[in-house]
Amino acid sequence: MIGIIKKNLLSEGKTKKIYTTNNPFEVLIHHKDNITALNGLKKNFLQDKGILNNEITTLIFKFLISCEIKTHFIRKVNNREQLCHKVDPIPLEFVVRNITSGSISKRLGIKEGIFISNPIFEIFYKNDQLQDPLINDHHAVFLKILSYEELNIIYSMTSKINHFLKKYFLDKNILLVDFKIEFGKNHRNEIMLSDEISPDTCRFWDKKTMKKLDKDLFRMGFKEKVFDIYMEILKRLNISSSI
Amino acid sequence: MIGIIKKNLLSEGKTKKIYTTNNPFEVLIHHKDNITALNGLKKNFLQDKGILNNEITTLIFKFLISCEIKTHFIRKVNNREQLCHKVDPIPLEFVVRNITSGSISKRLGIKEGIFISNPIFEIFYKNDQLQDPLINDHHAVFLKILSYEELNIIYSMTSKINHFLKKYFLDKNILLVDFKIEFGKNHRNEIMLSDEISPDTCRFWDKKTMKKLDKDLFRMGFKEKVFDIYMEILKRLNISSSI
Repeated sequence: MIGIIKKNLLSEGKTKKIYTTNNPFEVLIHHKDNITALNGLKKNFLQDKGILNNEITTLIFKFLISCEIKTHFIRKVNNREQLCHKVDPIPLEFVVRNITSGSISKRLGIKEGIFISNPIFEIFYKNDQLQDPLINDHHAVFLKILSYEELNIIYSMTSKINHFLKKYFLDKNILLVDFKIEFGKNHRNEIMLSDEISPDTCRFWDKKTMKKLDKDLFRMGFKEKVFDIYMEILKRLNISSSI
Repeated sequence: MIGIIKKNLLSEGKTKKIYTTNNPFEVLIHHKDNITALNGLKKNFLQDKGILNNEITTLIFKFLISCEIKTHFIRKVNNREQLCHKVDPIPLEFVVRNITSGSISKRLGIKEGIFISNPIFEIFYKNDQLQDPLINDHHAVFLKILSYEELNIIYSMTSKINHFLKKYFLDKNILLVDFKIEFGKNHRNEIMLSDEISPDTCRFWDKKTMKKLDKDLFRMGFKEKVFDIYMEILKRLNISSSI
């Protein structure tokens, strides 16, 4: 951490802590070993999960930066921490769905595993008290979270991210079923991808076996399998294409 | 009903029956005296409510036709029935909100009565089993209900309808708080406004007193006041502007 002085805890979420640094425009993001599901109703501790997620999200953000996506990521500084541009978080979760699974099957009354030809984009209002409700663009504008123009910028970024990530994972024999991303604004009011991208925030299925390779294992009660599966994702990301 | 022969019951909803006629492209819509709320969980019978709603929706559809909105309405044929173009109903409810009230306050955790500068549009998937969930454009396209282009046509029509109706009701000292409309496609695949527009499907507040003049009275348990309030709406629509 040469040159970076970790200062005060700025905020703490379910799986990460954010610290200020000696640079007012940069923060240190620390990945904890907690794992949660169902809006925090189901939670547990998983030794060294934070190390895996820090490494996985680092690889993915580096890849997206190479695709010219603007992100908060600067560099990984140690096992659990990365240095990032400080952003004002936008309290929305942007979800992209390429294959039906999870809450959308329940909401629309459709079975899991259907390929979606036009990816489905969804926005959820991050509000624990309201249980992160699905909202639409008009709600987000009414809540003064974003303007219609800013939403369009984010949808355009999200669409590109989905395009790049689908291919990136397919090269590792992984289907990108769906994922959740978050954005923030830096001190120049620029919108950048923030938060993390990991098996905590994506659904990954093995391309051949359709086996789940993500947090759904925890949701389904197989906590003991989670670490190995996250490790498998990390291995596949570190190995060049097997195709 | 000269020239119209009422034939078979085509479908029956919570408050209306639809009959085929001797013309394969036209139907008779019969307004019943039922009143329901909370997706049918709360229901009752209200003598002659169907007569009021048939008359109110007739006046509103005639007004919208004069504004060049394409609708299913042809003419009122008797107290309870109107002749309409037969449409294939689109299983979506389009909601427009000009002032916060009802489910949006609950969903977003905001109080009632806030004026919304950019009207909020919402779509709900008509599906009793799923309890009519809020969805977005991508869901509607995925469900093969409409294309993105058709959704844009409907949003454009909905925006115009809101524009015209807000002014129409304001002239009668009524605030159009929100409303729900439905659309269908005729045999030439043209999209037209269908269903009804009445105090069953809108929230109306008196401009001066902010008194509720709609089905919210029933939702709130004041069934005995509903008929008089609907009658008041009808009177105001029949009287020219009091401004």
